[in-house]
Amino acid sequence: MVGSWRRTRNGAPTEQSLRPGQANALQVKEVLLHKKTKYQDLLVFASTNHGNVIVLDGVIQITERDEMSYQEMLAHLPMFSCDPKQGLIIGGGDGGVLREVVKHSCVEKVTWCEIDGDVVEAAKRFLPSVAKAVGDPKVELLVGDGVAFAENSKENCYDVIIVDSSDPVGPAEKLFSKAFYVNAERILKPGGVICSQGECLWLNEELISIMVQDYGACFACAEYASIQVPTYPSGQIGAFMARKSGGKGEISCRWPRREPQEMELRYYTSEMHAAAFALPAFLQRRLEATNKKRRLSWQG
Amino acid sequence: MVGSWRRTRNGAPTEQSLRPGQANALQVKEVLLHKKTKYQDLLVFASTNHGNVIVLDGVIQITERDEMSYQEMLAHLPMFSCDPKQGLIIGGGDGGVLREVVKHSCVEKVTWCEIDGDVVEAAKRFLPSVAKAVGDPKVELLVGDGVAFAENSKENCYDVIIVDSSDPVGPAEKLFSKAFYVNAERILKPGGVICSQGECLWLNEELISIMVQDYGACFACAEYASIQVPTYPSGQIGAFMARKSGGKGEISCRWPRREPQEMELRYYTSEMHAAAFALPAFLQRRLEATNKKRRLSWQG
Repeated sequence: MVGSWRRTRNGAPTEQSLRPGQANALQVKEVLLHKKTKYQDLLVFASTNHGNVIVLDGVIQITERDEMSYQEMLAHLPMFSCDPKQGLIIGGGDGGVLREVVKHSCVEKVTWCEIDGDVVEAAKRFLPSVAKAVGDPKVELLVGDGVAFAENSKENCYDVIIVDSSDPVGPAEKLFSKAFYVNAERILKPGGVICSQGECLWLNEELISIMVQDYGACFACAEYASIQVPTYPSGQIGAFMARKSGGKGEISCRWPRREPQEMELRYYTSEMHAAAFALPAFLQRRLEATNKKRRLSWQG
Repeated sequence: MVGSWRRTRNGAPTEQSLRPGQANALQVKEVLLHKKTKYQDLLVFASTNHGNVIVLDGVIQITERDEMSYQEMLAHLPMFSCDPKQGLIIGGGDGGVLREVVKHSCVEKVTWCEIDGDVVEAAKRFLPSVAKAVGDPKVELLVGDGVAFAENSKENCYDVIIVDSSDPVGPAEKLFSKAFYVNAERILKPGGVICSQGECLWLNEELISIMVQDYGACFACAEYASIQVPTYPSGQIGAFMARKSGGKGEISCRWPRREPQEMELRYYTSEMHAAAFALPAFLQRRLEATNKKRRLSWQG
């Protein structure tokens, strides 16, 4: 059994601290790889019913069986919200988001900045259907720190930035900071869109509110969209989405601007895109209160 | 830890057979009640982080922390799809769906048919905020078999039927049958709506297809709507929804006919109602193929 209350390299029980009192687990058939990388504990195992699985610091990141919901939604929510030519992916070491991004024929170049090259190698070896776009000629892979990359990039470079990070502990911590989003906004083109792994609405309401209110404050709009991922805790994770001002058309990312014609998709549809922005009453009230407060402070 | 691979009274590992290779679990603070009822293994425990929890035959049914998503959606999806006066609830022993149904001022009477009176008593004692409508003057509680009740009821009696059952093993098995739905259709008023616990799209695609195609065949339309329940396996469960022919207005249940004004809700909104009917591409294709096949067989 993997997935419940495992310990990280620094001894902290990740699952327990992030999701106290609950655990989800998958049955192991065979451990394929287990190593300490420069950044984290990396485990790959063959499961009995979910295909091969990548686990980082004790937290299930991806299973072959259901990976399409997360990869397709995190990629296509922002990709269909504009007409992207230049893309930047930060994280997403398994290559799944990359695979979806290069399906868009309008894309000319994707810069992919992943901190842990060992995860990319593991995905190529053990989840080849996920990592299949890693060698795509449109893609430039930079193994390095996405936060530093954003700091050092020129302004107005990217139509889309996708941040596919693990939870805000360990290597991904700095990606959940105001400083990162200030830089992300700067390096986006006018009207460009950022979409980040935005944590679970059942477990991280406070963090979601901070992301939408505080990190989103420098954008024209900031929203949260909901994605089902059956092998994540609570079966749900979000996309934090924000658009830089200065573009044309609808500011909200809720209504896709293009249809997924001729694209092989297993999860994403235009209807699923719009539906992802419908939020439970408790969260909608919280984010509305947040936005109201923000509007009041702008007036002041 | 409760919730993973526990065994039922007949020795079958429910979780394992229904959801092979995966488990979800909640941390136990204190066991409050554990007994064999006439129908099933009933466990109530206080959890460390999810309030009090009811477990039937080893499967988590409800937690105080997140119960509102299931109760509100299973009740309000059908209730807001018509203007119900006469309601029938089958199952839902914890009283949560009942609590939501009686919030509708248009409702004159609710007949509630639950097979296991011990579950009702346990909910009243240990989850009083869920069971708070049990004594409501509009409610008639009949402890008995819902399938037999539907068989013996007169036609055209109910505006809404809600089936809040456990999984199709044990006492709920007969509720997942064509024979039950034929009777349910008969006892609904023209234009009336049935909404049943419709299982998980990640785990029960085959059953969902059978319900929509076969069980739904005697209705004017049959649909599947998606509900997030973080403490259910895969974090998702569905509502099978069907409308009897002969009513007025839109046949699909997708668009609510009334707004939840003045109603205290934590999860349901009109937007969540419509969004629940947006389905992942793989399931939409499967159900479309199903409906196409049905239309072809009608023509033949």
